[in-house]
Amino acid sequence: MREALRLAKYGRGKTSPNPLVGAVVVRNNRIIGRGCHRGPGKPHAEVIAIDSSAKPKGSTLYVTLEPCVHYGRTPPCVDKIIEEELKKVIISVIDPNPCVSGKGIEKLKGAGISVECGLLEKEAKRLNEFYFKHITTKLPFVILKVALTLDGKIADANRESKWISCEASRKFTHRLRSEVDGVVVGIETVLKDDPNLTSRAKRNPLRIVLDSNLRIPPNAKILNEEAKTVIVTTVKKKSDHQTWVVGKNRQGRVNLSEFLKVAGKFSLNSILVEGGAEVFTSFLKERLVDKVLLFISPKILANGLPFVKNIGIEHLKDAINLTKVSYKRIGKDLLIEGYL
Amino acid sequence: MREALRLAKYGRGKTSPNPLVGAVVVRNNRIIGRGCHRGPGKPHAEVIAIDSSAKPKGSTLYVTLEPCVHYGRTPPCVDKIIEEELKKVIISVIDPNPCVSGKGIEKLKGAGISVECGLLEKEAKRLNEFYFKHITTKLPFVILKVALTLDGKIADANRESKWISCEASRKFTHRLRSEVDGVVVGIETVLKDDPNLTSRAKRNPLRIVLDSNLRIPPNAKILNEEAKTVIVTTVKKKSDHQTWVVGKNRQGRVNLSEFLKVAGKFSLNSILVEGGAEVFTSFLKERLVDKVLLFISPKILANGLPFVKNIGIEHLKDAINLTKVSYKRIGKDLLIEGYL
Repeated sequence: MREALRLAKYGRGKTSPNPLVGAVVVRNNRIIGRGCHRGPGKPHAEVIAIDSSAKPKGSTLYVTLEPCVHYGRTPPCVDKIIEEELKKVIISVIDPNPCVSGKGIEKLKGAGISVECGLLEKEAKRLNEFYFKHITTKLPFVILKVALTLDGKIADANRESKWISCEASRKFTHRLRSEVDGVVVGIETVLKDDPNLTSRAKRNPLRIVLDSNLRIPPNAKILNEEAKTVIVTTVKKKSDHQTWVVGKNRQGRVNLSEFLKVAGKFSLNSILVEGGAEVFTSFLKERLVDKVLLFISPKILANGLPFVKNIGIEHLKDAINLTKVSYKRIGKDLLIEGYL
Repeated sequence: MREALRLAKYGRGKTSPNPLVGAVVVRNNRIIGRGCHRGPGKPHAEVIAIDSSAKPKGSTLYVTLEPCVHYGRTPPCVDKIIEEELKKVIISVIDPNPCVSGKGIEKLKGAGISVECGLLEKEAKRLNEFYFKHITTKLPFVILKVALTLDGKIADANRESKWISCEASRKFTHRLRSEVDGVVVGIETVLKDDPNLTSRAKRNPLRIVLDSNLRIPPNAKILNEEAKTVIVTTVKKKSDHQTWVVGKNRQGRVNLSEFLKVAGKFSLNSILVEGGAEVFTSFLKERLVDKVLLFISPKILANGLPFVKNIGIEHLKDAINLTKVSYKRIGKDLLIEGYL
């Protein structure tokens, strides 16, 4: 199953709105076939794994997600497994998609195939955290990505923020962008930093600007042809750009919950929120964040722009506690990852 | 030499103002004697290692610091090595103490003993960073110890700071305190938090309060009998407590450079600065810090007291960059260690 999980990761950034899936076919304790799903409309991992096996009949299939039972753009995997007369199927996690959810297992069992479930389930859920969030809530998985100093600043006193993080962290960010469906910035960041927000790695996500009053200048880099862009605003106005008009919150800004609903409707499984402080603050204040990625640069700035402003926490005991915290060195920086 | 370095660490918190020293005697690639210096007036590591060897004649001594050549509270180690007719001495690092500095090596060579120097020198210097700083500058090695949230806050909006860090971090702090000669807090912290600042581990360091205007209340815990305390102030006034009177800085507060000179004169090799924000800010602003230890709790507080205030940095490029950064997990917290 570790091998199946490893294979599944090759699909990163390619499968959305589909999940990442890896599969291996095993006979006599030897792997005889491997498969990985590589995107909507392309064959599923199970099918590839079975087709790449010399003699799948009587063998065992390891798959990171419950095989599908419905006709999508490809025929159901369950039928393929039954057809090829596999003996046993070992599944990491049940597909929460209501079209599947347990029905795949049922049909396999009905065909006399032995089924086990739950092997490396935690890893398999983590692997598909974007898909699981979206399929169960119809909202995208929200990641806050912050580059900050040891004292929690994202820019100096002049709002200069370029190069807080090291080259390795920036490279890492480009890879991250290629693995999510959307990247989000506030209009203040566009006006101040004029970012491009493309990914130098593989594919570009949809660029999303939160721009309550449609102030974006027509020459903003983020509007260039390098990737698609959508402006999220509260004003109905004719615009040359693709816009999503959503309601206002109490401060007259974009209602973030509504924005996430729209993003979910447009099949965005995941968004990476890249700034600035106002946007981070709003997302945290409304607890709309699933995960934070903090690239901490070993610098002390003291004076400067804090990464998060007033989110209404009066007491230490009410602080937002991150869970499942992990960290690793990225070049000179430290990446702290945690869930809300 | 690794074994000698390991042994040296047993002296932590006990040897000041002497350095930490470990020694092993080796014959035919086998360790036949071990020694560790355990405090002023007690025998030196070399002597213990030689005395614990069955037959030291003709063997090799590994020692983490150049053996002494002068009469202190114990006779010179170099004489012992010559007397016992060791064949070879391998030293990590030359003792910067002007009473020794190279003279030990010279005398050994003069007696026909082969000497090598520089094995694991970096580690040996790091081991004795307190001693090296003090012996070469007559100032203590200054460590800033900060418990903070991911967004750089050391207390909530009500200045409540207790339990920002986890139990394991607090335990670690108690061990730290037992390894330094002094712990420093500002009067604001005493007035607000009334800390005891003793160490539950081994011995207590000298407790030092920076109290420019001698405002400390007589019932402050830090004045109890559990450990010694000194008040550093700018006002000459009769006091029941031990005081060090130093000059004022431009803000009318304790002149920190002067304070450090006095601390150095009183043979404090090392001080641990524990807060609060004003004290951290002053030490950083005047660049009087050698090392920082940041216990980062995986919390986001947003509103609260930042760990460091205005230190006059306008531009990101002028930020204080930490070097030799390392980190480790301490319970739920992350400890980041770095040098200035």
